[in-house]
Amino acid sequence: MVELDKQLDFIMEMDLLKSVYRQALVKSDNNRQENSAEHSWHIAMMALTLHPYASEPIDINRVVQMLLLHDVVEIDAGDTFAFAADEALAGQHAKELAAVERIFGLLPEQQYQHCKVLWLEFEQAETADARFAKAMDRVLPLLQNMKNNGGSWRNHQIKKTQVLNRNKYLAGSAPALWQHACQQIELAVQHGWLLDQ
Amino acid sequence: MVELDKQLDFIMEMDLLKSVYRQALVKSDNNRQENSAEHSWHIAMMALTLHPYASEPIDINRVVQMLLLHDVVEIDAGDTFAFAADEALAGQHAKELAAVERIFGLLPEQQYQHCKVLWLEFEQAETADARFAKAMDRVLPLLQNMKNNGGSWRNHQIKKTQVLNRNKYLAGSAPALWQHACQQIELAVQHGWLLDQ
Repeated sequence: MVELDKQLDFIMEMDLLKSVYRQALVKSDNNRQENSAEHSWHIAMMALTLHPYASEPIDINRVVQMLLLHDVVEIDAGDTFAFAADEALAGQHAKELAAVERIFGLLPEQQYQHCKVLWLEFEQAETADARFAKAMDRVLPLLQNMKNNGGSWRNHQIKKTQVLNRNKYLAGSAPALWQHACQQIELAVQHGWLLDQ
Repeated sequence: MVELDKQLDFIMEMDLLKSVYRQALVKSDNNRQENSAEHSWHIAMMALTLHPYASEPIDINRVVQMLLLHDVVEIDAGDTFAFAADEALAGQHAKELAAVERIFGLLPEQQYQHCKVLWLEFEQAETADARFAKAMDRVLPLLQNMKNNGGSWRNHQIKKTQVLNRNKYLAGSAPALWQHACQQIELAVQHGWLLDQ
């Protein structure tokens, strides 16, 4: 199979991410569920807008690439709700590792390696680029829920401590954004959108 | 208004692109119409995959940024079908220029300028980066229609010459992809998905 055929197969496979639906709601579109393709676009735009707040040197182009491809594994593994039980999240990780091999494996060897390295770096969140990317991925649902009267938090009776814990990457990678997130979380508790626990 | 407030307003405004629907159909999701947010993600992924085919030196990171933001103006201006009448396309351009000012104008001055420059560069398609970006934007619907038994071409009785003309950027910016596109267009005519005119 020639390289171009492999690459075109991969590109058409990407279409499937448009039918993976998340818990987040699209306020502008009758509160339908958001899919992972449009979510990936939105966090890339967010990272491009907020990268000046990174407290460590980051390569914004690598961050954008990580964010664009980090959810591609959901084509096989599906989306697991951020606040699902630990067992569900552990099972998800194994499915995602298999998806990395199958989906990025559609690409020619060099591109497969490039995508896999970026995906693993994002997951491990041990580099400045990955920490900032992860912080973006986690803070956007917070902003969406705040604009949407609590959105998916209210539907699932989420606790303040869960949201604080989920957004902890911000504290180190973008302190000014972390401060904003903490204020928003307090406001959500006051509105009754998050449980004060 | 502090910078961060402006940036957060812009980020939340982006949510609206998820409710701008295009003529392209999402095969994996019961052939619903595609929205411009997920389309923008898809072409960015496509550019990251196919940039080795560029025949001129390009900066793939600028290309990705152009592709991520090029449709943001549709929040105000809506999407105009690629094969609409010339008058509709001319009216669209004026609406898009106004949208550049309002939407990118939500950002702090320096980021507004950055986005506007990239958007205009994409529209004018006079640089290698913009030509390659435009070629990506135009060839993806072709690939989608080929995977979908003619898709939106059949719904609108589109001619072969219209698709060839729309994909002309490929000829200069990525000849190997242009060759593939021409083969696909011939195949579409044979299947009766494009009119042989």
